[in-house]
Amino acid sequence: MSGQLSIVGLGPGDSCYLTAQAAAALAAAQALYGYGRYLERVPIRPDQARHPSDNREEGSRAAAALAHAAQGTSVALVSGGDPGVFAMAAAVCEAIESGPEAWRALDVAIVPGVTAMLAVAARMGAPLGHDFCTLSLSDNRKPWELIERRLDAAASAGFVIALYNPISQARPWQLGTALQRLRRHLSQSTPVIFGHAVGRSDERVTVTTLAAADPAAADMATLIIVGSSETRVITRPGRPPLVYTPRSAQGAHT
Amino acid sequence: MSGQLSIVGLGPGDSCYLTAQAAAALAAAQALYGYGRYLERVPIRPDQARHPSDNREEGSRAAAALAHAAQGTSVALVSGGDPGVFAMAAAVCEAIESGPEAWRALDVAIVPGVTAMLAVAARMGAPLGHDFCTLSLSDNRKPWELIERRLDAAASAGFVIALYNPISQARPWQLGTALQRLRRHLSQSTPVIFGHAVGRSDERVTVTTLAAADPAAADMATLIIVGSSETRVITRPGRPPLVYTPRSAQGAHT
Repeated sequence: MSGQLSIVGLGPGDSCYLTAQAAAALAAAQALYGYGRYLERVPIRPDQARHPSDNREEGSRAAAALAHAAQGTSVALVSGGDPGVFAMAAAVCEAIESGPEAWRALDVAIVPGVTAMLAVAARMGAPLGHDFCTLSLSDNRKPWELIERRLDAAASAGFVIALYNPISQARPWQLGTALQRLRRHLSQSTPVIFGHAVGRSDERVTVTTLAAADPAAADMATLIIVGSSETRVITRPGRPPLVYTPRSAQGAHT
Repeated sequence: MSGQLSIVGLGPGDSCYLTAQAAAALAAAQALYGYGRYLERVPIRPDQARHPSDNREEGSRAAAALAHAAQGTSVALVSGGDPGVFAMAAAVCEAIESGPEAWRALDVAIVPGVTAMLAVAARMGAPLGHDFCTLSLSDNRKPWELIERRLDAAASAGFVIALYNPISQARPWQLGTALQRLRRHLSQSTPVIFGHAVGRSDERVTVTTLAAADPAAADMATLIIVGSSETRVITRPGRPPLVYTPRSAQGAHT
């Protein structure tokens, strides 16, 4: 009679990034919840109920999945990438904290996955090979001034920076402003990676410089990695360049 | 005749975190390289040559794998966690940059994996649910002053902080000094997670406070997550607490 909720990371793109643990959690579920485009990645099984929802309904989706599990059902809530990085795990925790007491007694398991920055980094080399920061550029839930303060802190201390949620129709100017902010701290030649739709058929991962980085090259499915002063580019004959941040750092930053 | 090198992330702990892509890369390899303890996690196949090496021989291991691939062999170099996060991908890039020109022509593929901080975070809730920094506490390859500057920058800007390589026999005092440094910026009640050997049979993941965090509770197999001023703990009857960082942030930090 005791229900169970698994929050399952599918990894980015297609099923190549799915872990064995995630596959097992999906197989064990009686009901599936998730953003429609992520749910589509899970093969249909007639004995599993499917409850797709819209992209921005994270809070209500979390509450619906918890309520269903509290009825004694084994529920899997799917998430792109890793559920713990700007994704559903925090939304579920918020719902548990503010929800009915019974939700605190539920068996909740979080199944980690490959998050987008790891997959994008892997395509280009090892840009996250040394200390880095992971930052959402969305100012829907935090003040823009805080984002600028974090960009300043990260860049001036020599962290490589991975930017999630860089741009959307409702947030058109933030990425350009952020890149301009980073130009105060970092050399114009700093490598910048645009990773679009990694793991999908329309994947496109490219490297440019901070001087040339163009916000128009990004969309909602783009993950951006901005190097540090240590990040290097290796040119290769007949192959794309490798971008990496060495394991050693000197501490002399701009 | 053309060789190939795959740098394959196994995820932390046992094979439950292995992705489908990583399993395929291991299956396709003619020769396997890696730190002995990671190689032991790959089932033995008589037709695959195995070349284990010691933990700290990253540079020579990378060079040996590249040289073998350059002979026309399909080589897999295994890495714990994700190869791009304080692991083998950067070591291979370094070897390519300083090595023979022929290594630049090689087909090199990096297969991402679940890195330790994602698996530890998943065990406790969603501590990495908002902006965070990832930092190695090892001062083997960077000055300690740089680590302190990065701790100051990350904590004062409100990032959650994931600490890799917190302690070793050769580096006994660094973690205690780092925690003391963080106490300048963060409340004594800030949640701190110690994740030991996540995914292994001796796994132990616990939460404490910054005031009570004891360096003696960590070893080489420990990943530490230090919360921000926003990070919260949900107590649950008969279950371990959930630790999470909400999706919203106010920007009012200590």
